[in-house]
Amino acid sequence: MARVVLGLIGFGTVGSGVVQLLSHQKSLNLKKIAVLDSNKERAVKTVCPVTTNVNEIIEDPEIEIVIEAMGGEHPALEYIRGALERRKHVVTANKEVLAKYGPELFALARQKGVAIFFEASVAGGIPLISTMNKGLEANEIAAVTGILNGTTNFILSSMESKGESYDAALKQAQQLGFAEADPTNDVDGHDVAYKLSILSALAYERFIKPQDIFREGIRNVTAQDMAHAKEFGYRIKLIGTSRLAKDVTSGDSACDVRVHPMLVPLDHPLANVSGSSNGILVNGHAVGEILMVGPGAGSLPTASAVVGDTINLASALQLPDFATYFQPNIRSEWGNVVSVGSWSCPFFLRILVSDTAGVIGQIGTILGAHKISLASIVQKGVQKDEHGASAEIIIMTQSTKEQTLRDAIAEMQKCSFFKSMESLFRVFEAPV
Amino acid sequence: MARVVLGLIGFGTVGSGVVQLLSHQKSLNLKKIAVLDSNKERAVKTVCPVTTNVNEIIEDPEIEIVIEAMGGEHPALEYIRGALERRKHVVTANKEVLAKYGPELFALARQKGVAIFFEASVAGGIPLISTMNKGLEANEIAAVTGILNGTTNFILSSMESKGESYDAALKQAQQLGFAEADPTNDVDGHDVAYKLSILSALAYERFIKPQDIFREGIRNVTAQDMAHAKEFGYRIKLIGTSRLAKDVTSGDSACDVRVHPMLVPLDHPLANVSGSSNGILVNGHAVGEILMVGPGAGSLPTASAVVGDTINLASALQLPDFATYFQPNIRSEWGNVVSVGSWSCPFFLRILVSDTAGVIGQIGTILGAHKISLASIVQKGVQKDEHGASAEIIIMTQSTKEQTLRDAIAEMQKCSFFKSMESLFRVFEAPV
Repeated sequence: MARVVLGLIGFGTVGSGVVQLLSHQKSLNLKKIAVLDSNKERAVKTVCPVTTNVNEIIEDPEIEIVIEAMGGEHPALEYIRGALERRKHVVTANKEVLAKYGPELFALARQKGVAIFFEASVAGGIPLISTMNKGLEANEIAAVTGILNGTTNFILSSMESKGESYDAALKQAQQLGFAEADPTNDVDGHDVAYKLSILSALAYERFIKPQDIFREGIRNVTAQDMAHAKEFGYRIKLIGTSRLAKDVTSGDSACDVRVHPMLVPLDHPLANVSGSSNGILVNGHAVGEILMVGPGAGSLPTASAVVGDTINLASALQLPDFATYFQPNIRSEWGNVVSVGSWSCPFFLRILVSDTAGVIGQIGTILGAHKISLASIVQKGVQKDEHGASAEIIIMTQSTKEQTLRDAIAEMQKCSFFKSMESLFRVFEAPV
Repeated sequence: MARVVLGLIGFGTVGSGVVQLLSHQKSLNLKKIAVLDSNKERAVKTVCPVTTNVNEIIEDPEIEIVIEAMGGEHPALEYIRGALERRKHVVTANKEVLAKYGPELFALARQKGVAIFFEASVAGGIPLISTMNKGLEANEIAAVTGILNGTTNFILSSMESKGESYDAALKQAQQLGFAEADPTNDVDGHDVAYKLSILSALAYERFIKPQDIFREGIRNVTAQDMAHAKEFGYRIKLIGTSRLAKDVTSGDSACDVRVHPMLVPLDHPLANVSGSSNGILVNGHAVGEILMVGPGAGSLPTASAVVGDTINLASALQLPDFATYFQPNIRSEWGNVVSVGSWSCPFFLRILVSDTAGVIGQIGTILGAHKISLASIVQKGVQKDEHGASAEIIIMTQSTKEQTLRDAIAEMQKCSFFKSMESLFRVFEAPV
């Protein structure tokens, strides 16, 4: 078999791993690597020529597959688009570009008769994309739920195991290379939102606009929250989910797509996905529930997905018109989301109230008036400050619609006993 | 797209699930079902004609894909072979036929230019085959290890949670339909051995003859063993593994392939795979470790894998010569295995000795002479019977070569203090 000629764009963490793994693949010929700065020291040595002119890859008629491993929105988008327009197949790890421009890019690929492979864009080395795309082909997917960001899982795991603050855990993650100097993309949930858009496209045939996805990060999670959660039998994890729902107003099918911290029961497998690992539950109507756990990031695990895609693509290249087989059924319009308030789950609240008799009764009355059932309500202790004595109350509700809970909270906040809302967490229940 | 015409052989548990799921697939046309007994009541209704003459499927030129869901060695082997010889693609859930005749059948498929899809043959609904075959394509697999049989996992889980005997748990599993009337295939590890042969073919390109696989079932596991294991922080699971090893005599690559009960640390994910679920760890040189957990058996989960395969196959049928893309790299010769004695792990022993002073010292001396380090040695209690007083001793060793341990045990058995070997379990360590 003739060797398939490749071009690589990006020679950072992922690109270095790709170069390393490709060196063992005799049927693949890496012809050129495009980088932004040709003088930068690289982690991996290669005899492959390096250029700062990406057109030497995109416009080279000999190159059949372009691997995009630079990340970020621009100019990666333009490079991917340019490669597809020149009828080159693309392998990419770029969740941001796919989430923001997926409908356009997959339509372009179909039009040009080429394929986009993107196993590395979600869950690093875990073969989640091929599982959703091919392995569970006979299933209608009811939900995809899990821990999809290694950085935040590392931070939350350290906070819990060492009892340390978010800031201390973040700093350590940065020193160890698990978090970037500007951690916004990870800790505020953007990265998970991109991945949920891609998973929604595979599960429900439509990408979700990242700005439509409800997003709450981990900046406000405290060591105290961790300790309280543990006392109640839970662990705090940043959970992303995309579930099939019905839009109540239109009746159309829509998705409940969201990323936020959740209290996960300690005996649930997701609670035991620690450090920088990822763990994902997929619920299909025929198979039931599948769990996949593995390294969600890192040079070689991510490169494992990129190079796996490349090998699969290259071995299919000899088939005429094979690309249609690899074009997932994704519609060109964006998907709809339901309001975050329309979904139900149990809630965990920590509030400060004035330390006066009858407060618990008043809270119970307000919640009851909203038909919210309590699982437990506990007063944790009394503290004194310049505003008088405050009591800390922890409330765990039964499953209730989020909008109903919000209405009840708004009512409590009007009461004279109410001092402040310290924390509000959603509680994980098995999806569906 | 023209509808792809299918024939189904077998209308039992798996076949019924297949019929049910196929009814939602508009691009697939199930033309006929072959059964052994046409008068039998079926769980699922279908308008599809049913025949007792399998040749109406195998010899029908219109049928492109034959789904074999009858199980067992004969006549399933002959039907699969007959379908391949007539250039029909085959989707099968039959681990026994693949494990025993894999080299011949895959060679025949290559020769005839057709594909064999077999996702359902291992781990039921978990897409493990496609993950090994495509998802982890860039990896050299170091080990595949896990809980591969739902029946035995159900029995062991009930024994532990209810403290009941093997016989009681088996009986209950039979009543609930989780175990067959003759449970040999499951409880003696044959089923796992077949699956390990198939996984070895995917990981190391060679099937392993089932009779070459070291096999120890769960018949001798007692509730007492379970309780002792728990006390030491372990849970007993039936673990199958195939690991790349070196044959010390020839220097050739060979596999360590085996199925036996093991003590799994309680905090390891495999310890928490309960009931009839399966859980598998795959270790790849690039990705590290991937865990997959899900339903390992059952009508719809297994049918999910069968129908997923069928959809993937059918959508590729329009590509000329596509079958090579789906022919895994499997050599036609059988793989070699290393002796079970050549692998190392920690061991858990429970022995009865005469209740005399200095016995623990003597045991320690014998183990020490064989350079076996102890993790712990504990006397659990003294019991009296017609042969005098006996003490129960529990020994946990550090990792040691199994042959070395066997030599040491043989030496102990010659000593006057030795009464009987009550249990011997290998202890799970993370593979590689």
